Amino acid sequence: MLFKRAMLLVCAVSIFLPLAAGATTNNPAIDIQQAPARPKNIIIMIGDGMGPEYTSAYRYYQDNPNTEEVEETVFDRLLVGMASTYPARVSGYVTDSAASATALSSGIKTYNGAIGVDEHKKPISSIMQIAKKKGMSTGVAVKSQVNHATPAGFLAHNESRQNYVAIAESYIDTDADVILGGGQRYFSETLINKFKDKGYQYITELSQLDSVKKPKVLGLFADIELPLAVNDKDINSLTIETKKAISLLSQNPNGFVLLVEGSLIDWGGHDNDIVSAMGEMEEFANTIEVVEQYVRDHPDTLVVITADHNTGGLSIGANGVYAWDPQLIKGVNASPKHIAEKANEDQNWQQNMITSLGFTPDSHELQTLADAREEGTKALTTAIKQLISLKSNTGWTSGGHTGVDVQVFADGPGANLFRGHQDNTDIAKKMISLLP
Amino acid sequence: MLFKRAMLLVCAVSIFLPLAAGATTNNPAIDIQQAPARPKNIIIMIGDGMGPEYTSAYRYYQDNPNTEEVEETVFDRLLVGMASTYPARVSGYVTDSAASATALSSGIKTYNGAIGVDEHKKPISSIMQIAKKKGMSTGVAVKSQVNHATPAGFLAHNESRQNYVAIAESYIDTDADVILGGGQRYFSETLINKFKDKGYQYITELSQLDSVKKPKVLGLFADIELPLAVNDKDINSLTIETKKAISLLSQNPNGFVLLVEGSLIDWGGHDNDIVSAMGEMEEFANTIEVVEQYVRDHPDTLVVITADHNTGGLSIGANGVYAWDPQLIKGVNASPKHIAEKANEDQNWQQNMITSLGFTPDSHELQTLADAREEGTKALTTAIKQLISLKSNTGWTSGGHTGVDVQVFADGPGANLFRGHQDNTDIAKKMISLLP
Repeated sequence: MLFKRAMLLVCAVSIFLPLAAGATTNNPAIDIQQAPARPKNIIIMIGDGMGPEYTSAYRYYQDNPNTEEVEETVFDRLLVGMASTYPARVSGYVTDSAASATALSSGIKTYNGAIGVDEHKKPISSIMQIAKKKGMSTGVAVKSQVNHATPAGFLAHNESRQNYVAIAESYIDTDADVILGGGQRYFSETLINKFKDKGYQYITELSQLDSVKKPKVLGLFADIELPLAVNDKDINSLTIETKKAISLLSQNPNGFVLLVEGSLIDWGGHDNDIVSAMGEMEEFANTIEVVEQYVRDHPDTLVVITADHNTGGLSIGANGVYAWDPQLIKGVNASPKHIAEKANEDQNWQQNMITSLGFTPDSHELQTLADAREEGTKALTTAIKQLISLKSNTGWTSGGHTGVDVQVFADGPGANLFRGHQDNTDIAKKMISLLP
Repeated sequence: MLFKRAMLLVCAVSIFLPLAAGATTNNPAIDIQQAPARPKNIIIMIGDGMGPEYTSAYRYYQDNPNTEEVEETVFDRLLVGMASTYPARVSGYVTDSAASATALSSGIKTYNGAIGVDEHKKPISSIMQIAKKKGMSTGVAVKSQVNHATPAGFLAHNESRQNYVAIAESYIDTDADVILGGGQRYFSETLINKFKDKGYQYITELSQLDSVKKPKVLGLFADIELPLAVNDKDINSLTIETKKAISLLSQNPNGFVLLVEGSLIDWGGHDNDIVSAMGEMEEFANTIEVVEQYVRDHPDTLVVITADHNTGGLSIGANGVYAWDPQLIKGVNASPKHIAEKANEDQNWQQNMITSLGFTPDSHELQTLADAREEGTKALTTAIKQLISLKSNTGWTSGGHTGVDVQVFADGPGANLFRGHQDNTDIAKKMISLLP
């Protein structure tokens, strides 16, 4: 099956490329030299857990209710196809982030939990390794710890995503030029020194990125993950990381491959926390817009955007009611966890919580929140999330992943290859086939 | 906004058509005369409630677990884009079937409940009316009553979908050539006689379709809706209706527009009944395959397939578990309601229910079913559905609709116009722009 699919892909590349990007031909009638047929650079952007309901929800979240029109989003502009995400048969139909990152980086189905290894735990080549062999630069820019499943699936080989320290240690051998995200706790002083010895600049503050003028750089900006966008609204950390990553990687005349991950969309989904999920969607969309502009300015760059799977069984509308209230969600000024933590130390918690929520719960709802506060921060966090889901009519079916196909968005040379339906392994194969 | 969008569509048609379908040009190098640039016939197929999770679920439902490969479906073959479904602003972000049918037939956003009328309750032209004016034939083939929201949105104008009798009465003026589905109870003897006086052959059994050799025909095969596929596995009523509709409508040299609706996918979703929903998906997919073959044999025919909205907040996997068991669902040999009805009259109900379910509930589950049986058929139906959802790990968030974008599938001349993201109103505008 894999061979057959690979052959089909080779055919697809051969057939589509000349048409797709206006390649130069011997026929003057179709000599349109606007962009190269193959990209010099590939930017892969993964919205972790960003199933179709997230991009639709984001459209309504960013909609201005005072205009007649529902404004289109960057996702609407760039949609080209969809992808199935199921892992190797041994893991059923619902993938985790490790198996899907391996599929997206290497074109191979594997078991849930596997990082860059096949079903037999044998390491397999990723697009990052293949790019390195071709003299290209590589990098990752994420909001999770840099050794979390998705970036690890592109850079490392390990039988289990849980082996965080071993995965971090293995990064020293990847020769990746840019590694930006969180995860200080997994990088010992000894390991950091090894990176420094290899010529890496090591930084721990986003503001230090200004001082980085050339690769290589290891930037770990948090103990584990970076702050949620909704708690840190002026920062746009993923956009900052991505801009710097592109400016550094583009110094290589042989081109680059960059992975950008909106990591915490998934964390919002796992937590059934629509406020945090939409905040992360907004930051990811803002980052895509920056990349979209880069691709417009640099017609030699392909961007491919997808999700690794869907998380949480999110739905726009729930409980038989045909409505969804994104304005209520947008009015909440911090994550439910953050609001709960503040409330636990606060005498005037009710009034301050009402301010944070942006709406006034009724007396029954306030009593539920008060009871939960007595039980502690975790219970109060849950109570706040449930209240927001109820009031906004947001549905959830799971604290885990679900098996719906995800969307594929693309722009730049070769983008047409990603049209229509494909498997997530096909995305990797197409990207690898497009490398110089 | 509407004007701007319409102008963009005109541009899209102008730009894409010559490339899309291999139109004849003055340049011999690109003179590929395989198919006309515009279709003669348009077949619109709507899977009611068929959001993205349904087509993914169907892939795994029809998968042969004994092969290495997960087999692709007709949906995978034909995917070209996605569509937003939100109704007019007055109805928020979650559409009903009436507003979405009006959007898909006429290109206008309206309020939920509206049948072929705008926000001011003013009738608006549908593709069916426009086709009639051009001398084309028109028809509908559905599994619901023929005057239910979706077909009504294509044929009628009424301020409310609830006015079933008035909608049925208005069909006499549509001049539709083929009307096939259910709904006998809404068509009085007087009304039937009016149809007969107008030259319609009236039939009430699917088997009578053999006797119909030319339009016009009114076939009402059930009091309300046709039987669920899962209770009537050998019948494939939608496929039978569709084949006959095409054979009758294609007698018109001016072409035809046919609406085919997999109506009861939505009913399975509303009921949170995965067994019935997947049975309906299978029948709809089988019908699409018949149409796909027709389009291959008749390159002058465009088929556009979409959903009007998503129903039920279905998810593949739920409750934090990364698994879904379609084989268990496939093993249930009738709808939960049907199983419950049989059980209520049956002394040996437990053993017979185990046979119908295809799996043996544990003692606790059997007790829950026994308790529900004491409460009556409705409670037992609910208990059976919940047990199947639990055992198969199927998630639901609602008995109503949700606002996720739906997929768009197309084949034939003009199919490329439906690529990427679009609004549901754009689908109507594109189809109307493609009429001869």
